[in-house]
Amino acid sequence: MTRVRQGGGRPRESRIDAAVLAAARELLAEVGYAGVTMDATAARAGTSKAAIYRRFRSKAELMFAAAVHRGEVTPPPDTGSLRGDLLALARTIRDAMSSPAAREVAPQVLTEIRRSPAVSDRLREVFVTSERSEIETVLDRAVGRGELMRRPDIATVHRILGGALFFGVFVVDEDVGERELHQLVAVLSAGVVAEVSPHLRAHSPDI
Amino acid sequence: MTRVRQGGGRPRESRIDAAVLAAARELLAEVGYAGVTMDATAARAGTSKAAIYRRFRSKAELMFAAAVHRGEVTPPPDTGSLRGDLLALARTIRDAMSSPAAREVAPQVLTEIRRSPAVSDRLREVFVTSERSEIETVLDRAVGRGELMRRPDIATVHRILGGALFFGVFVVDEDVGERELHQLVAVLSAGVVAEVSPHLRAHSPDI
Repeated sequence: MTRVRQGGGRPRESRIDAAVLAAARELLAEVGYAGVTMDATAARAGTSKAAIYRRFRSKAELMFAAAVHRGEVTPPPDTGSLRGDLLALARTIRDAMSSPAAREVAPQVLTEIRRSPAVSDRLREVFVTSERSEIETVLDRAVGRGELMRRPDIATVHRILGGALFFGVFVVDEDVGERELHQLVAVLSAGVVAEVSPHLRAHSPDI
Repeated sequence: MTRVRQGGGRPRESRIDAAVLAAARELLAEVGYAGVTMDATAARAGTSKAAIYRRFRSKAELMFAAAVHRGEVTPPPDTGSLRGDLLALARTIRDAMSSPAAREVAPQVLTEIRRSPAVSDRLREVFVTSERSEIETVLDRAVGRGELMRRPDIATVHRILGGALFFGVFVVDEDVGERELHQLVAVLSAGVVAEVSPHLRAHSPDI
């Protein structure tokens, strides 16, 4: 096994990964979510259905990975401030959600989450875990800079950042431009600073 | 026309409204979103399809009204603080989203928003307008109490509150209990206070 990996297993693996995701994206654009099959994706990617299922346990997982992110998100470069980092993150999330592929996939994946607890568990395990780890990095940087006295609840920040953008883009279906991103991040960053900083809370009115 | 209204038009109207919504809720529970038709809803409610379409322009609108809210939401009673009011609002929204009917309807309505700009426009006009007006009332109370120096951006507060709850309940599909509601409202209320209060911002670290 070690020998196979040393012999170039990882590049080959990542080539298959990339081919599968590219094939899924092409099919999504050509035939829409309902029309995509694992068979057609395997054929287009020049691999086997088994190879796809080793990577993605369901069509929903494959479609999410192809349209939104692969579950290995990279934190934004350090901008020097919590507010700057959250703004960079908000832009990345908004852009990812606004792509035609993500708009096609989001309502369908929500339907599959509703239908299958196993799919829901797996998507949470892969994608939500990765998103929250990215947020953790950004919050830890702010603690390191002394902007935050301690790390606020990661899930709350994830729900606010991801949720406000998901809601704006897919539910309210309105323009989420730079102005809206700045307003969101202004409230969120001020809120986490005040929430974890007794110094600031002491100055807060009676709320 | 005036005479008809004076002669009891409004009670009759609201009886039809209630019958249509009750019929839609029953059918939703019995046959699921895909199985509900305007014809079956009219028959069950003892009214005509035309009467339903005078109230709800699409099946998506009827289903949303039956499962979530009617587009005439009532602000929570004044709890005496912004944080208390936002918490009451968050509980109401979380409860409305967590019902079996809302869980059935949400992914489907998202699909219809994606399919039809006309449906999306109408849902925004009816439901989002009403939700934002409720938030406006809560924020104006806080301004009146002196908790906020001015009203923060309503759409931002709506996106954060509605979005974080929608995301937690339908997307991440995790338990959104009292602890999570308190954490959300702590960050949101501290955030809007800091955002619209130069006095507090002056004390804020360099963000």
